[in-house]
Amino acid sequence: MRTLGATLERVAPGEVDLALAFREDLTQQHGFVHAGVIAAVVDSACGYAALSLMEPGAAVLSVEFKVQLLAPARGARFLALGRVVRAGRTLTVVAGEVRDDGDEVVALLNGTMMAVRGRPELAD
Amino acid sequence: MRTLGATLERVAPGEVDLALAFREDLTQQHGFVHAGVIAAVVDSACGYAALSLMEPGAAVLSVEFKVQLLAPARGARFLALGRVVRAGRTLTVVAGEVRDDGDEVVALLNGTMMAVRGRPELAD
Amino acid sequence: MRTLGATLERVAPGEVDLALAFREDLTQQHGFVHAGVIAAVVDSACGYAALSLMEPGAAVLSVEFKVQLLAPARGARFLALGRVVRAGRTLTVVAGEVRDDGDEVVALLNGTMMAVRGRPELAD
Amino acid sequence: MRTLGATLERVAPGEVDLALAFREDLTQQHGFVHAGVIAAVVDSACGYAALSLMEPGAAVLSVEFKVQLLAPARGARFLALGRVVRAGRTLTVVAGEVRDDGDEVVALLNGTMMAVRGRPELAD
Repeated sequence: MRTLGATLERVAPGEVDLALAFREDLTQQHGFVHAGVIAAVVDSACGYAALSLMEPGAAVLSVEFKVQLLAPARGARFLALGRVVRAGRTLTVVAGEVRDDGDEVVALLNGTMMAVRGRPELAD
Repeated sequence: MRTLGATLERVAPGEVDLALAFREDLTQQHGFVHAGVIAAVVDSACGYAALSLMEPGAAVLSVEFKVQLLAPARGARFLALGRVVRAGRTLTVVAGEVRDDGDEVVALLNGTMMAVRGRPELAD
Repeated sequence: MRTLGATLERVAPGEVDLALAFREDLTQQHGFVHAGVIAAVVDSACGYAALSLMEPGAAVLSVEFKVQLLAPARGARFLALGRVVRAGRTLTVVAGEVRDDGDEVVALLNGTMMAVRGRPELAD
Repeated sequence: MRTLGATLERVAPGEVDLALAFREDLTQQHGFVHAGVIAAVVDSACGYAALSLMEPGAAVLSVEFKVQLLAPARGARFLALGRVVRAGRTLTVVAGEVRDDGDEVVALLNGTMMAVRGRPELAD
């Protein structure tokens, strides 16, 4: 997230918001922020949201996620909201969205995160 | 793609391969390449593959994609293969995968791309 | 939907609810309602929701959908809620959920519907 | 699957094919087989494929799947092919497709199955 310049805006149990400032080098060929950058930020927000409900020492890995692009990601600043929909012992279902600075939803994420335990080299 | 350092390896009608070299700043907290970076590269490979079958002047936008992470993205170099499964006039169905330098598949993408026409500011 | 015995509970612009009564022959091997039946009902609810915002003569086809199963579909009656998230001229983004009779969400759907026009044999 | 009239055509480790005969009552409003029925059959084929690689006593549940509809499901008979892409101890990644009697692919599935153990009431 450092490479993308994303910053942590808010953390609550099961909820994490990340902010991303527009940068020329994150755009695709049409001047919008690249779909993959949008996916990376909202996947991270959702991963942290899942982790916020796990016990210390657990790590979180993305199993899969789907991203739907609703509108071109234009604007100076984006907010990625990650939310836990259902936390299980092994799998956590997450939902996220990315809003532009006019508060329009530009992307949705729906995914599955997995808790990894007993592997200290992965501890978050 | 320039920010990620991805390079074009191969282009054929409906098929585009991109290579990505491991870089410290693309990793997540466990030292693997971040799922979002993986998604960005394979989404790009699939977008270019879709574009390769469209007429000049058309542009391509991602409607949605799903990424499944099969194994941690460890290694020095990754290859993202983008393939057109079915090309329609408006929508193109794409499938992609990311292979590590041991040729193991670390991620799958299945998505939908949309052709945009008559908007010269978007022409690819 | 007649084969499944689903009934229309509520229609509003962009919102359609379908009810499904438990039937022995819709269960999978463990006695829960089969994931595919759940998918069929919530896909239908979302398709009708998309159609409710289109002009007369248009038809709607599912382009793709993702279903996440949150809990086993146990119970005597299920409600499938289909909602339009964003209606475009060609593509409509939809979200749906299935609730059991204790109002627990047992499944989520996120999908893309397409309007088909000028093909009277398809008109809904 | 009995309600849909699907029959088992082929079983090999990690591979299961199911056949579905066209029936009037499985169609949607345009006379094609309903997307949800298509999803149900290919989800079942993939679930059985996952189960074919698990030890006796294990059960399989669908965590999530995405279905992409490539062409209207017209024809007298359909074949749903379920394949294991990667089998893990807890999660199994599956891919499936549905072919019509002209061998055209009408739908793709990509999903995640979960093994459930130590719950004899679920044993498959």
